[in-house]
Amino acid sequence: MIYLDHSATTPVEASVIDAMLPFFSKNFGNPSSVHQFGQTAVMATDNAREQAANFFGAQPEEIIFTSGATEANNLAIIGVIKALQKKGINNPHIITSRVEHPSVLEHCKMLETEAKGPSITYLKVNKNGIIDTEEFKKSIRDNTVLVSIMSANSEVGSIQPIREIGKIIKKINERKEKDWKNANLKTRGQRPQPIYFHTDATQIINFAHVFNVDWNYIDLLSFSGHKIYGPKGVGALYARTGVPISPAQIGGGQEQGRRSGTLNTTGIVGLGAAINLLKEKEIEKNNKHISKLRNMLVSGIKTNISSAILNTDIDNSIPSIANFSFPGFDGETIMIALDLEGIAVSTGSACGAGKLKASHVLLSMGIDKEMSQRSIRFSLGKNNTEDEIKKVLEVLKLKVCKV
Amino acid sequence: MIYLDHSATTPVEASVIDAMLPFFSKNFGNPSSVHQFGQTAVMATDNAREQAANFFGAQPEEIIFTSGATEANNLAIIGVIKALQKKGINNPHIITSRVEHPSVLEHCKMLETEAKGPSITYLKVNKNGIIDTEEFKKSIRDNTVLVSIMSANSEVGSIQPIREIGKIIKKINERKEKDWKNANLKTRGQRPQPIYFHTDATQIINFAHVFNVDWNYIDLLSFSGHKIYGPKGVGALYARTGVPISPAQIGGGQEQGRRSGTLNTTGIVGLGAAINLLKEKEIEKNNKHISKLRNMLVSGIKTNISSAILNTDIDNSIPSIANFSFPGFDGETIMIALDLEGIAVSTGSACGAGKLKASHVLLSMGIDKEMSQRSIRFSLGKNNTEDEIKKVLEVLKLKVCKV
Repeated sequence: MIYLDHSATTPVEASVIDAMLPFFSKNFGNPSSVHQFGQTAVMATDNAREQAANFFGAQPEEIIFTSGATEANNLAIIGVIKALQKKGINNPHIITSRVEHPSVLEHCKMLETEAKGPSITYLKVNKNGIIDTEEFKKSIRDNTVLVSIMSANSEVGSIQPIREIGKIIKKINERKEKDWKNANLKTRGQRPQPIYFHTDATQIINFAHVFNVDWNYIDLLSFSGHKIYGPKGVGALYARTGVPISPAQIGGGQEQGRRSGTLNTTGIVGLGAAINLLKEKEIEKNNKHISKLRNMLVSGIKTNISSAILNTDIDNSIPSIANFSFPGFDGETIMIALDLEGIAVSTGSACGAGKLKASHVLLSMGIDKEMSQRSIRFSLGKNNTEDEIKKVLEVLKLKVCKV
Repeated sequence: MIYLDHSATTPVEASVIDAMLPFFSKNFGNPSSVHQFGQTAVMATDNAREQAANFFGAQPEEIIFTSGATEANNLAIIGVIKALQKKGINNPHIITSRVEHPSVLEHCKMLETEAKGPSITYLKVNKNGIIDTEEFKKSIRDNTVLVSIMSANSEVGSIQPIREIGKIIKKINERKEKDWKNANLKTRGQRPQPIYFHTDATQIINFAHVFNVDWNYIDLLSFSGHKIYGPKGVGALYARTGVPISPAQIGGGQEQGRRSGTLNTTGIVGLGAAINLLKEKEIEKNNKHISKLRNMLVSGIKTNISSAILNTDIDNSIPSIANFSFPGFDGETIMIALDLEGIAVSTGSACGAGKLKASHVLLSMGIDKEMSQRSIRFSLGKNNTEDEIKKVLEVLKLKVCKV
């Protein structure tokens, strides 16, 4: 079996499992409990919180553990909007892009339909899946309160200009603040509401040994365990101190009241251990290996199947993804044919799997509907080998496309 | 170390860990993926879904996996209210009790403050923590759409008259429906909205080998893994076919669009395996053992510390809980003194731990503020032994209360 679907999920690393195991039946306390069983659990979740915070150059108390990136993305958006509405900001505007994950995009579309919901701008992307920062600048309104742009796309791998976006937002926030301070004390009105910058970093952090929220001017950041060789069912939202977050999940008041529910100690320990794997040397080695395999795959497909169209911008993408359209072949058909040969790839994002529809990402990149339905995403991982890529190329050529 | 805090959380059973392990790194696929890795994961989550459905006498598609009981409780309430509001029901009324878990109670209080939010009735309880079904009947209004009453209380263990409540609701729904059918076709208006019955069954199912939703007339039911010797970070909401649920978590459309986010395969497999432990013979044996230990504990405390006041109604409670107030001693002080001796108990619910406030459950039962702050919850588990109880009694007598 050859697994080339690492953007959908990754196997849990052995050392991560080892880190989690003691928390099932030995150190099984509820971190909300005051006794020793509870405190052992708190120490473990605090340690994971620090591991996560360190990676992002953040403070431990800025990490809110969630059940995954979907919850974290939802919380970033609804949490900020609800908190601002409580402060009397009744006409908020959000800027996002057309290529976001459904947990941002569908969530925004849902909020848009609500009475007194926010208004939303969905930025276009170019043929490589990247937003235009000039267009982004123009889209900013006086009532813009939140910008949500993913760091790397899950279907084609494009990396967005996160730091540039962050800088633009920072300048606007600083100018607004300065104008307000310089204005007539009697007439200047309320202190201006800054724009907060959220990024879904789920797909990028596997390839970074550091992803600093200050350097990137990020206020909110989502990620999950199962995309970085950690467990499913756990993720986190980084929320910069001072960014108001109304909770979406209400109850026992965990996570400083920002996300209630018994902490998933085992999962959180696994998330911390998985983040801890993202060390400079390790990442450099993995990226080099994965890039090499992707180059083999891309040049092999181009050579063997001349009609194949590469949808990924190799020069500006995470090293793991190569998204191809195969004229004459439905993505679904190729995927199933490869599956019969023991090779796992995906058509569009895994979350949308089972639904026969054209990828919203490829459509947004200007690729026509037919080609958008004919795409295959290969997403490589650190454990893939050259032999596996050779096998995939052979199967694709001889058994699938039969060229 | 002696652990008497099973209502806060339980250790994961060895067989449950064994069931989960293969899903970390061997069968690690994303259940949303169409290929074999994904389908292996789907088979596993489907199996767990059936295990859960069977236990409740439900259909597999009526089980919505969540990150725990807090999310399930939240979803039951907000999901129904939002769905009904979309249908044009703008003035919904909810009936709940004053002794619910914060994920019901605090959630209701939050919703109440929202513009166009539901109105809520919080039923009183008697000195044993039980609601009065006559008062409940009287509290039902024409616009009542949801009743949320927990099956067993987490702090004192009281069992609510779930089937009786369910029957009352069913009769009202049937009468409304009949009246409507018999009314003049031209003037009768819209079909009446039934009242849905939700119960938080988190604390009860450990002691039941069956908890049939039809027999109990339940429409919505929440539970979690970590209270039944399963993993943390996973739970489920049973939602009867036809009960409208608007999703709270939006994204990839998993769980038939009712709860998005990559399925936590490992956790779900663990939840299924934990439910599978709740077999008739096993439960009977455990209940007998736990009841015996509780009797030992209760009579021992009564004999040794004559001032101690039992807050649990032994004849109408789950067998695991004994909640005592110790006049002259703060609950916190006793809890910490026991902890120093390696004995883990809780003051009030674990979710409220760390907060020095009187238990809302005990206050609602008419116990005064002082005694409510002086309570200790002992919650026993199947692995506790007679020797452990003897030790606890001795420590309580000689070292803690020093009688």
